[in-house]
Amino acid sequence: MTRISAERLLADIASLAAFGGRADGGVDRVAGSAADLAARDWLAGRIAEAGCVAWRDDIGNVFGRTPGGSGPWLLAGSHTDSVPGGGRLDGAYGVLSALEVLRTLREAGHPAAETLEIVSFWDEEGAAPTSGGGLVGSTAFCSGGHLAEITAFLELHIEQGPRMERAALDLAVVEGIVGIDRYAVTLTGETNHAGTTPMDGRADAGRAAARVLVEVREIAAAADPGMVANVGCVEVLPGAPNVIPGAARLVVELRAAGRAALDACAERLRAHAARVAREERCVAVVEVLSRKPEARFDPALCDHLEKVCKRLGVTHDRLVSYAGHDAGVLGRHVPTAMLFVPSSSGVSHAPAEHTPDRQLVLGCQALLDAVVAW
Amino acid sequence: MTRISAERLLADIASLAAFGGRADGGVDRVAGSAADLAARDWLAGRIAEAGCVAWRDDIGNVFGRTPGGSGPWLLAGSHTDSVPGGGRLDGAYGVLSALEVLRTLREAGHPAAETLEIVSFWDEEGAAPTSGGGLVGSTAFCSGGHLAEITAFLELHIEQGPRMERAALDLAVVEGIVGIDRYAVTLTGETNHAGTTPMDGRADAGRAAARVLVEVREIAAAADPGMVANVGCVEVLPGAPNVIPGAARLVVELRAAGRAALDACAERLRAHAARVAREERCVAVVEVLSRKPEARFDPALCDHLEKVCKRLGVTHDRLVSYAGHDAGVLGRHVPTAMLFVPSSSGVSHAPAEHTPDRQLVLGCQALLDAVVAW
Repeated sequence: MTRISAERLLADIASLAAFGGRADGGVDRVAGSAADLAARDWLAGRIAEAGCVAWRDDIGNVFGRTPGGSGPWLLAGSHTDSVPGGGRLDGAYGVLSALEVLRTLREAGHPAAETLEIVSFWDEEGAAPTSGGGLVGSTAFCSGGHLAEITAFLELHIEQGPRMERAALDLAVVEGIVGIDRYAVTLTGETNHAGTTPMDGRADAGRAAARVLVEVREIAAAADPGMVANVGCVEVLPGAPNVIPGAARLVVELRAAGRAALDACAERLRAHAARVAREERCVAVVEVLSRKPEARFDPALCDHLEKVCKRLGVTHDRLVSYAGHDAGVLGRHVPTAMLFVPSSSGVSHAPAEHTPDRQLVLGCQALLDAVVAW
Repeated sequence: MTRISAERLLADIASLAAFGGRADGGVDRVAGSAADLAARDWLAGRIAEAGCVAWRDDIGNVFGRTPGGSGPWLLAGSHTDSVPGGGRLDGAYGVLSALEVLRTLREAGHPAAETLEIVSFWDEEGAAPTSGGGLVGSTAFCSGGHLAEITAFLELHIEQGPRMERAALDLAVVEGIVGIDRYAVTLTGETNHAGTTPMDGRADAGRAAARVLVEVREIAAAADPGMVANVGCVEVLPGAPNVIPGAARLVVELRAAGRAALDACAERLRAHAARVAREERCVAVVEVLSRKPEARFDPALCDHLEKVCKRLGVTHDRLVSYAGHDAGVLGRHVPTAMLFVPSSSGVSHAPAEHTPDRQLVLGCQALLDAVVAW
């Protein structure tokens, strides 16, 4: 049985964390920053040191493969850019694990090395003001010619939530990524004098918006107990202490495993907003801002990953990801699946992002086993 | 019995409305603007045309009095500046009525003309960014030497609310101005990933703030059914659709006729914010931003105004003002009272500000009667 090198993997994770490294243990490696570009050069160097060929496409995705291979390729990887003040593992772990798998298979003279390609996608996070929402490299890849040479995509990643730690899981097979809908809820009332307008005569758009906001959690739970909802943006106008707000705007983000739950939740949100608006003498308008469809990963590939987990004898389960990933983009074009390792306390996009070494090593070994057995 | 000239009063109101006049019937006459300065010059001209002396103090208050008079003076007036997009009556009505009373008494050769001084205070509204909250001219006046020559102050004004119209009142004696307290309520939770953080593990400061906001109306009603409360400023941070808000801030403004009601309301607000914060895994801090004490007008002067209303045979009552006025400032130094006429539909600080001519004339006549009988 071929075994990855735990020491080499962990050393690579530490080395990559030095690019944009912060005193608090986090990283600032926003796509296109000097730290991000230097990290990509370093990665290309590590690929070359492993006796492989490193190459880049037009958008800036970095690839690595055995020299002389002709494909088609099983692709494995993730991204090396981070959010500002992010952690050392988000993305980086999946890229370096793929590198470790390729390196190990080559050293072992395993034929799977000949058809494995690894990748660090450009700008997954979309943290730069000009990036247009992230998943930039994987989206560009899926409209390029190289896609036709890819048979499947595997992405190993940290969970970024607390579910696996709570359930004492070492590994999880990710069956898909939730769909994400964003709605703008606008309440229009009447700006008026905050002193002389009687309380029973106010059309207070701020109060109406707050009444909508406080019900969003219950509305989502009623539509689907497994979905999540967030109101991240709240604007109340004109915004003076002595003026009754005449307008307010909320941005509501919904994430669920299926279109039915998202639509049921939006329906309840509209009905609630309309009822509140009536009661508060306001007018409510609910508009779609964006819809990202859910991704369902390849069932055969998910079954394959589950068998790998079983053979490793570790605790494992199947999950749906509530965060977006490059795999969500590739999954629309080629058979795709993901493996998760736990995130301590569920922390991610923060310097305290952490996964125990044992599970980092396990995840990488599972990736190797999956590549070999595919 | 001496009668004011309805035609002259209404013509003056129309003339003054041309300074900063808008196509929609409103006025833009913010203190210090070209329109405001031109209106003050016009007012000084009208005072001179009436055979009186117009003069200004250092801050820009415009005064008018009979030539040769020596005081002490009964002062009457209001202000001629407006909010942006304000109405034709707020302030202007009180100044022009005082002018009409002085003019009428002089023409009648009434001795009360000898000891009546009229005023248009500088910058009551505080609409200019540099004005520091309004009541600028009256506040400066009360720290100046001329104050010692004033025996009492009378201010005629529109109600700016709907209470008089609802109760079919022609005139109201204003017994005082509510105290105004402002509080900042800050909720601190934890910024986190809006997808991967389970709903039951969130410390959502935006949700906590909304729960505080929606109860403010009930909290105020429980403390004092007559008081009013407003949440005009709402800030939720960091303000991204996919980030759970880690901080939120509300500005709560309370207006009540007494310190006891204001303090009882603040006490309930603190308790509610603390309870919500506990339930939402957040921390609440409630801080005083400002306290404007209530003004209680002179009881003898209020009784005097009530007798005048009775003698005129009009519908009248006593009220407390929920808006601030120059009279609130003067009331801390000299016997002061106010008279209100109704505002149609309660609209003020808006172009649609309106009072029927009959009531405008009645109010001015009541001011004359009050000056004569004082």
